Amino acid sequence: MSEPLKIAVAGLGTVGAGLIDLLQKHADVLQSRCGRPLQVTAVSARDKAKDRGVNLSAYQWFDDAVELAAKADADVVVELIGGSEGVAKDMTEAAIAAGRNVVTANKALIAHHGTELAHAAEGAGVNLGYEAAVAGGIPIIKALREGLAGNGVSRVYGILNGTCNYILTQMRESGREFDDVLAEAQELGYAEADPSFDVDGVDAAHKLAILASVAFGCEVNFEAVHVEGIRHISPLDIQFAEELGYKIKLLGVAALTNGHVEQRVHPCMVRKSAPIATVEGVFNAVVADGDFVDTVMQEGRGAGAGPTASAVAADIIDIARGSRIPTFAVPAADLKALPTLPMEKHRGAYYVRLMVLDQPGVFADVAAVLRDCAVSMEAVLQRGRAPGEPVPVVMTFHETEEASMTAALEKIAELDTVVEQPRMIRVETFGE
Amino acid sequence: MSEPLKIAVAGLGTVGAGLIDLLQKHADVLQSRCGRPLQVTAVSARDKAKDRGVNLSAYQWFDDAVELAAKADADVVVELIGGSEGVAKDMTEAAIAAGRNVVTANKALIAHHGTELAHAAEGAGVNLGYEAAVAGGIPIIKALREGLAGNGVSRVYGILNGTCNYILTQMRESGREFDDVLAEAQELGYAEADPSFDVDGVDAAHKLAILASVAFGCEVNFEAVHVEGIRHISPLDIQFAEELGYKIKLLGVAALTNGHVEQRVHPCMVRKSAPIATVEGVFNAVVADGDFVDTVMQEGRGAGAGPTASAVAADIIDIARGSRIPTFAVPAADLKALPTLPMEKHRGAYYVRLMVLDQPGVFADVAAVLRDCAVSMEAVLQRGRAPGEPVPVVMTFHETEEASMTAALEKIAELDTVVEQPRMIRVETFGE
Repeated sequence: MSEPLKIAVAGLGTVGAGLIDLLQKHADVLQSRCGRPLQVTAVSARDKAKDRGVNLSAYQWFDDAVELAAKADADVVVELIGGSEGVAKDMTEAAIAAGRNVVTANKALIAHHGTELAHAAEGAGVNLGYEAAVAGGIPIIKALREGLAGNGVSRVYGILNGTCNYILTQMRESGREFDDVLAEAQELGYAEADPSFDVDGVDAAHKLAILASVAFGCEVNFEAVHVEGIRHISPLDIQFAEELGYKIKLLGVAALTNGHVEQRVHPCMVRKSAPIATVEGVFNAVVADGDFVDTVMQEGRGAGAGPTASAVAADIIDIARGSRIPTFAVPAADLKALPTLPMEKHRGAYYVRLMVLDQPGVFADVAAVLRDCAVSMEAVLQRGRAPGEPVPVVMTFHETEEASMTAALEKIAELDTVVEQPRMIRVETFGE
Repeated sequence: MSEPLKIAVAGLGTVGAGLIDLLQKHADVLQSRCGRPLQVTAVSARDKAKDRGVNLSAYQWFDDAVELAAKADADVVVELIGGSEGVAKDMTEAAIAAGRNVVTANKALIAHHGTELAHAAEGAGVNLGYEAAVAGGIPIIKALREGLAGNGVSRVYGILNGTCNYILTQMRESGREFDDVLAEAQELGYAEADPSFDVDGVDAAHKLAILASVAFGCEVNFEAVHVEGIRHISPLDIQFAEELGYKIKLLGVAALTNGHVEQRVHPCMVRKSAPIATVEGVFNAVVADGDFVDTVMQEGRGAGAGPTASAVAADIIDIARGSRIPTFAVPAADLKALPTLPMEKHRGAYYVRLMVLDQPGVFADVAAVLRDCAVSMEAVLQRGRAPGEPVPVVMTFHETEEASMTAALEKIAELDTVVEQPRMIRVETFGE
């Protein structure tokens, strides 16, 4: 029998405990699948005494994760601590420096330091696995890095945050306000007490930056992601979306156009018939557009102990089987520093809602601004009449450059008859 | 620079030409991704003179695919000829015997001879790649064998035949009859002149047998697949399905229950809200239920030159990168000969449509048969009245054993007032 693969796990929250559970429960079949046993040798967490529902007595205990990374009897060090800096980063660097493979579920770490860590890992001849960092249980990193590696990928996008997708699904189904649904999501444990990381799009942006790197063979460039969250989405816009045949989803979209990379996370209107529109509740989905494969979508649970443990285990299994694939699909030395397509240059379709006073001449003023900014409207929708009161006016625009749209909206906001900040939601199309 | 990986391709139809195109177009990035060049050295097909839209002049030509497999200057032999016997099988065996890796898109070959070929390949220390054999461009074999390898998979199912899904989608959208839509699909090139392989479920059954082996670590057992096609699906049943909140899809379902494997391909009623129900037209989708990951669905194009070439390329890239994974997730020696759960023992929900004469007492007779067979009905739906004429009566049944259902339907068919063969469609549930 071959030598066991020895595993040290730092961080014993729900994912860490889930991983231990998985490795214990499936020890026999994993040995068959890997050709060698997978053997946990050491663990580390803050509180040794806490009951985590799994038996840890056979493993060496480390109070200090960095010490575990450097000194545990391990071929693979699993980092489940989180955060882009501090212990997580220190222990990852220590493990690589000690010649150990690293597997992590830490999207912030990879989004901020992926490129340098890839250089370090490949220089040390070890694997850096991060399947669990993007879209939980969905094996999307493997799909992009291996399964679709014969393709030139021009776009990768997805629903990358289950909390936002849950909130938007609930808002649509119940007609309630964002704050109301958020509070409920917090009670149900679908949203954190401090929800900003999720609802402001940062978590999705971390994942998107990683996806872009794997898909396009470029350096991870989190700073270049344009990020907007879902706090300003109102039931009124959801209702108009419905009427126009759309759903509103928080998407992360990365596209490669003429050697420029566009990375953006923001609410999108997507046609109800688009596959991504059917992904509801806490589910995640990632779609890749490849030049040979056309479109492939993967859907599954983006968070939770089981799905995340499944992804961590997949990286460990790869290491046990001796697979050695470049961290971001191409060797770190080949990763390109591709220029960013700034958001002003983004071209796309738009939905705009104005609240205007219902009086003669209002629309002539709006139309004049649009003409002056060379923005041409596709359709307009006005509902209800309330003379002298504010009423919503919804406009949609065919492909337009973001800079022109922004300029037009700034001028429209200054009109006396426009009583609220105009609401703009980008419309995302998928070869429809 | 590392040695190139040398590739010989047998079969230059649309997929073969697509593969050559892919390898030529992406030569540079593939070299970066693989750490070595991918170099086609030899090709084989029936007609050397035919223009295939790709430049083959640099490659050695073989008239005989078996000779190519044994003698070409190649590390990998790609089999794109098709068929479970004859040249495809001979050349695969010859390549393995000569110590070459094999990549194939041939589902019939793997469904019929997968286990023995896995033994041969692993014995010779070479890879046998067949990603392209199942669901075209969707990297589902990689997902099951690697990405989800930390899970115990209890069920894998999917829409595995694009022709059937296209026909069923068209029938639903247009209300037309099967024969009419099939003829149109043939004109459009979505169905073969002899459509039986697709519409009778054989193609889906090949793919299902392969999926079951990878998912459950058992020998490929195509003979054990229960197969029904879609010829008997009528617009009337599609209409009733709609009314009851279902769509009709041809699914392949493989489940592992108490150590028994159930493999079945047949039309299913699936809730409209189920993710698999949203997969329309020529698209394929495969869903895996794992004990840690929960449910993961992959959707994409199941056929065509580009998607199939993408999958073949993925297997070649794996070989170039030195990945060595057991053919069916566990070593061939560990593949289990699991017992089959016979279809009579299948437990599930059912939809049944009878055509009965509209006269007093009819339903009492039907109800008596159901009582005698210990089959209990969930709901009944009768529409329209036409005294003395045949009218449809639709019944649905909660979980029932197939043997009881079959016995009841045989007796019902014998009733004088039942004027057509009863139509039964199984209802598939997904943790709803």
